[in-house]
Amino acid sequence: MNFTFQSKTKTFMGSKCIFNNKNEFLKLGKKALIVTGKSSGLKSGALIDVKKILSDNGIVYEIFDSIENNPSIENINDGKTIVKIFSPNFIIGIGGGSPLDAAKAIAVLATNDIEPIDLFDNVFLNKPLPVVAIPTTAGTGSEVTQYVILTRHDLKNKKSFGNEFTFPVIAFLDYNYTKSLNSELTIFTAMDAFSHSVEGYLGNRSTVICDFIALEAMKIFGECLQSLQNAVFNDVIREKLLYMSYLAGLVIIHTGTTSVHSIGYSLTYFKNIQHGQANGILLPEYLKINYEYATEKINKILVATGICSLDNFSTIIGKLLPTNVSLSKEEIELYASIAVEQRSISVNPRPLNKEDIKLILSKSLND
Amino acid sequence: MNFTFQSKTKTFMGSKCIFNNKNEFLKLGKKALIVTGKSSGLKSGALIDVKKILSDNGIVYEIFDSIENNPSIENINDGKTIVKIFSPNFIIGIGGGSPLDAAKAIAVLATNDIEPIDLFDNVFLNKPLPVVAIPTTAGTGSEVTQYVILTRHDLKNKKSFGNEFTFPVIAFLDYNYTKSLNSELTIFTAMDAFSHSVEGYLGNRSTVICDFIALEAMKIFGECLQSLQNAVFNDVIREKLLYMSYLAGLVIIHTGTTSVHSIGYSLTYFKNIQHGQANGILLPEYLKINYEYATEKINKILVATGICSLDNFSTIIGKLLPTNVSLSKEEIELYASIAVEQRSISVNPRPLNKEDIKLILSKSLND
Repeated sequence: MNFTFQSKTKTFMGSKCIFNNKNEFLKLGKKALIVTGKSSGLKSGALIDVKKILSDNGIVYEIFDSIENNPSIENINDGKTIVKIFSPNFIIGIGGGSPLDAAKAIAVLATNDIEPIDLFDNVFLNKPLPVVAIPTTAGTGSEVTQYVILTRHDLKNKKSFGNEFTFPVIAFLDYNYTKSLNSELTIFTAMDAFSHSVEGYLGNRSTVICDFIALEAMKIFGECLQSLQNAVFNDVIREKLLYMSYLAGLVIIHTGTTSVHSIGYSLTYFKNIQHGQANGILLPEYLKINYEYATEKINKILVATGICSLDNFSTIIGKLLPTNVSLSKEEIELYASIAVEQRSISVNPRPLNKEDIKLILSKSLND
Repeated sequence: MNFTFQSKTKTFMGSKCIFNNKNEFLKLGKKALIVTGKSSGLKSGALIDVKKILSDNGIVYEIFDSIENNPSIENINDGKTIVKIFSPNFIIGIGGGSPLDAAKAIAVLATNDIEPIDLFDNVFLNKPLPVVAIPTTAGTGSEVTQYVILTRHDLKNKKSFGNEFTFPVIAFLDYNYTKSLNSELTIFTAMDAFSHSVEGYLGNRSTVICDFIALEAMKIFGECLQSLQNAVFNDVIREKLLYMSYLAGLVIIHTGTTSVHSIGYSLTYFKNIQHGQANGILLPEYLKINYEYATEKINKILVATGICSLDNFSTIIGKLLPTNVSLSKEEIELYASIAVEQRSISVNPRPLNKEDIKLILSKSLND
């Protein structure tokens, strides 16, 4: 039994948790930069709540609400300019994974004289500004992980960085902020979280404590599966999905993700398939190709989720994540070439070569 | 679903984990004070390993090895004198709960001009020195909790303090260091950890995430129960017990303990019954008196541990923790008076009054 475990982010879960714990903001200083997307902060209701708390407590703030989906280096650079001028004590990220990751990146740039491209060196002289994370989706786990995933147009891919200093210091998990999410995005983000738990559990960096947390996340995913299939989400299910995403986040802090994410990035970059949808689409074939190498664990996934077989899972995913995208031979060749170079491909139960990845892609999209 | 969760202590689990992660010491500075008991550091082998790592890495150290069992304010004051003179960058606690708690207390006194008695105010101007915790027992969970429990001779009781600054920054969990523990202490400390998981699970501060961790700890306790009854401990069981203790520690960070601990303190103070033994002796009657108020949860405890009934649990405890201590009417009266004043009595499933506590004491010790 060997493991390292830590969950640095002080996490508050519950309806109205930002109001019930508003002192946490005050502890961080009197000047905050809010980092969010064009719509998620507003639509979710989180932005208005945060603004009220900051105003009521005499905390001065500015809002940078131009975070793109899958933010680019260039987008982060705009944030850098703002944070350098405004010079806040802390940063509040509100939104899905994109604004949360952007908040973390901007927090590093605020205290270090480096260019956004240098972030990927993952070495910073100075501690980043503290980040408060308020997710409005239930999927990325970014609210409790160290990871920052940015789009590199120069590489036509996503790249990540993150270390012990890039964890948000606080996360507020209030399912009310996920209620404005439409069914499609609710399903996509849930599939992202489920994929985190599955990849963390099956990857070679899995540990006894992460396995047990991952299985709990999968069990909760199983409890939500009928609602996901019916696309009907009450408060209980919304909260369960947020809790599942949090647990899966605790897992990938330590295990990272594996080939599903590595392969999925190209589907997002080139074909504009949403991140969680991409992962979900790839999951059944990923499980099938790994089955012989991780039979016992994959059987446990089926038991935890209540899914009766991998074929049944394929059927569920086909209905849950319909897509009309299909891939040409050249596209499959290109995406497999990109994926096979990713570090995270190697932390897979079965060693995957380029042909394996091509098979996963063609079976997932073209069959 | 409302909860707060955080596990601040970076925890390394595994055989030789201090050697495999020796850089962690270097990150903390070049001067360390080792705080340990008269024998636990030496007998466990942990002290010699730590000294080797420190020497090999040019870290200067001093050893304060006079920590008593259930350390008193006076004992902590001796540590204060040494830490002020030596002025280390960090503190390494090696041992059971007593040296680990002492290390945390001395870390606070190192950076704050206060007297040991002021520790219980739980407000410190300056951050304590970083503490590295290396447990040599599998029970207290102190290696990952904020709690410091000291003996107050003036109150004839134990008192605790602890806040977000008193968590060890690092914990090294190597079951090899628990192998020198005799059977009796192995059983006593295991009962302490089990009691943490049970009290955390049943107490009014329980949360969904702590419940699921507590149940896992109980499941592992159940897997070790036969070995505990046979008093035969191989490496696998030693490691499981250490892991169980860690998980139970994660629980009580957030839930605290309840009446078992509150009542048990008198048995330790006045009758010299070891802390874990005291908790274990009280557990069956604690569960029985709470059964009507927490039926479903107590049934889940029985399922998780594989114990078939509460009466069966009484029998197991009777054999596992034999004692010839019995209490006079006056003693029961006194201990109940002390316990009923404890804050943690109130976080119980069933509101306990003094008569209830007297009943628990007499049934546990005199029947």
